[in-house]
This record gives sequence, structure tokens and C-alpha cells, in this order.
Amino acid sequence: MTASDLSVPPGVPAVGRRERRKRETRAALERAALRLFAEKGYEQTTVEEIADEADVAVRTFFRYFASKQHVLFGDVGHQRIGELRAALAASPADLPPLEAVRTVLDALDLDRDEQEQILVRLRLMDRQPSLVGVYLMLNHELRQILVEFVADRTGLAPTDPYPLLVGGAAVTAWDAALSAWSAGGGTTSLAALRRELFAALTAGVLAGPPDRPPDGPG
Amino acid sequence: MTASDLSVPPGVPAVGRRERRKRETRAALERAALRLFAEKGYEQTTVEEIADEADVAVRTFFRYFASKQHVLFGDVGHQRIGELRAALAASPADLPPLEAVRTVLDALDLDRDEQEQILVRLRLMDRQPSLVGVYLMLNHELRQILVEFVADRTGLAPTDPYPLLVGGAAVTAWDAALSAWSAGGGTTSLAALRRELFAALTAGVLAGPPDRPPDGPG
Repeated sequence: MTASDLSVPPGVPAVGRRERRKRETRAALERAALRLFAEKGYEQTTVEEIADEADVAVRTFFRYFASKQHVLFGDVGHQRIGELRAALAASPADLPPLEAVRTVLDALDLDRDEQEQILVRLRLMDRQPSLVGVYLMLNHELRQILVEFVADRTGLAPTDPYPLLVGGAAVTAWDAALSAWSAGGGTTSLAALRRELFAALTAGVLAGPPDRPPDGPG
Repeated sequence: MTASDLSVPPGVPAVGRRERRKRETRAALERAALRLFAEKGYEQTTVEEIADEADVAVRTFFRYFASKQHVLFGDVGHQRIGELRAALAASPADLPPLEAVRTVLDALDLDRDEQEQILVRLRLMDRQPSLVGVYLMLNHELRQILVEFVADRTGLAPTDPYPLLVGGAAVTAWDAALSAWSAGGGTTSLAALRRELFAALTAGVLAGPPDRPPDGPG
């Protein structure tokens, strides 16, 4: 076994190296994009320029991000939303929907690295109001997923007030928690704040749809 | 006094005619815009084409609407938001802020004509997802006004959870009420639904900021 074999064992190593290189490329693209967004503005920056700045081909950019919007709220946005959708689908069928939403949101709380990424993006948004639209669309997507989940679990239409209220309360709590937390420099607990605000907003919302016992299982 | 003087009394008449013509031009621009948005899509329609379709100059378009977005949610959006801002400012200083928001929203409920206009726009949005962004920005603007009002009245920062929750709850109630009402073909009472949902969302939100007696005046 050579020294090279020691640091790069057969089978695993190639994947490890490839995986590491992928992460580096993704991080380089994110850094390049945020640098250009801050310098030139989000609207004025093209995918070509981001790829160029990160020294990769445009084709490579699109292997990592579906669009310019995805690189902006990428990892901490779309990816988390995908996880949320899966976690909701996997939640026990006998859990009241509001309880399921609360549990899943709690389980998906962000680690310190992700919180740092969010802070950078929120600050960029403060300086560039055109990014607000991207942030609002992400919240809209999150709300839609929650509304559809609650509708599905209760048998109500996604246009029924109950699913709409649960989804709306969750996103409002999330948005308000982010604003307050970011204004405080991200020093307090984002998760605790979000939980508190969600509890306040749902205290008056029925735990179940009108025609089933509130908060009772099944 | 001639027949012409009878139908057009001196002083008032010129204004009446001018005012009527202005309303006609505004309505023609709105009709033209909605027709083009439905046919070609919102993004693909230019202000030039809207002006052309309404048979007026581009300059004239901008006398009535600040942007293409304004013509979309014009009268029932930006104008109402302006009125809301004024009504909030005029609300008694000793009214708890949550109460002031509730009273002002109740007083601004929309008449049948405005509700019809909203229905047309919501249906257009269902078919053209790109319009969702415009709608979200309008909600964002509404939320900001409410948050700033509550912050101002309570002496809290606009990034404090309390103003953020009140503004968020009002917009969530409004958005959920619109969705449910529009899905039902606009046959139920939009105002009653919005009131009910706002009450549900604010039942668990303090009526006053943390350091003043909840719901007490002053």
C-alpha cells in the first residue's frame, strides 16, 4: 500500500474527492454570486458573469443551481424547502396537522453555518430592494407546501381558510423571526423566536379543521 | 341661460367633464392592460402596447399609472394602500395599535365593483404565475405600512416581534380571505371572512407591546 493509497483508499476515495470538489465548486459559485450581487446588483448580474468569476463554465453553473435565484437563496432556501416537503410527507398520519407542521419546522432548524449564510443574504436584501421579490417568492413556495400538506391531511381544499391560516401563520412566524433576529445581529436564538411567534399566531387557530375534534389525534 | 348652460353650469362643469374623461381614460387603460395581460402575458406586455391599445400616448399612461405593476393592482391596490396609511395616521392616539389596525381595515372594506376588479385580477394570476410576484410585493408593501404604524405607536423598532406579528397577521388574514373567497367565486362576504381570520391570528398576540397593559387604552 503506497502513501497515496493511505490517504486515498480504493473505492471510497474517488467519491470523497469528487464530493469535496463538488462542494468547493458550489461554494465558489455562491461566493462569486454574492460578491457580484453586492457589487453590481442582483438584476444586473448574469449567470455568465457568475460562472466567469468562479472560473467555471456556464454549463457547470447549471449543474449546481437551477437559476440565479437558486444561487441566492440556494442551500438555505430551496434545499431546505425540499427537505421540509419530505419531512411533512413522512410525519405520522395520526398527528394533528398543526402539530405535524410545528414538529417538522422544529426539526429543520438551521445550524450556525446556515444562519451565517442567511444573515449575509438578508443584509444584501436590505441594500437591494429588488431581492425582496426573490425572498417573497421563497416564502410563497414554503406557504404553498404547508397549505397543501394541511389540506391533504384534513381532506379540505387548499383554498379552505384552515390550511391557509396554518401555512400563513408558519411563514409569518418565520419571516418575523428572521427580521427580528437579523436586526439584532443574529445573536439571539432564531429557533426559539420562530417557535414563540408561531405559537402566538396559532393560539387562536383551531388545531384541527372545523369538523374534527380540535387537537385530538386522528 | 342656454340649454348647454343647464347641463354644464359655469365653473363646476369643466371640472366634471374633465374628471369624467379622466375616469374614462383610466378605465380604458385598465381594460386594455388586462386584455393584453390575458392574451400575451404580463411580462410580455409593454407600457407602449397598453397605451396603443387604449389609443393614448405613453405619456398619458404615466399620468395615470406609475408603472405596469400599478395598472395591474392599481385602484384596488396602491390607492387603497394610500388610504390605509392616511386612516392609520388619523386613528386616535389612545387606541391600542392592534385595535387601530382592526378598525381601519374594517372601515376600508371594498365595494362590489372593487371586489369584481380583484376577482378578475386573481383569476389572471392563477393562469399566469409571474403575476404572483406583483401580488406578493403589494402584500409586502401593506405589511410594511402596518408594521411601521404599530412600531410608531408603541415606540418599538419596526424589527421588533410585536409590530412584525401584527402586520404579518393582518396580511395573512387578508391573503387567506382573498384565496378562500376567490375560490368560492366571490359569493361569500370577503369582509366577514377577513375579520374572522384576523381575529383567529391575533387571539394569541398581545393587544399591546410587552411593557404596556394588554388591550388597555393609552
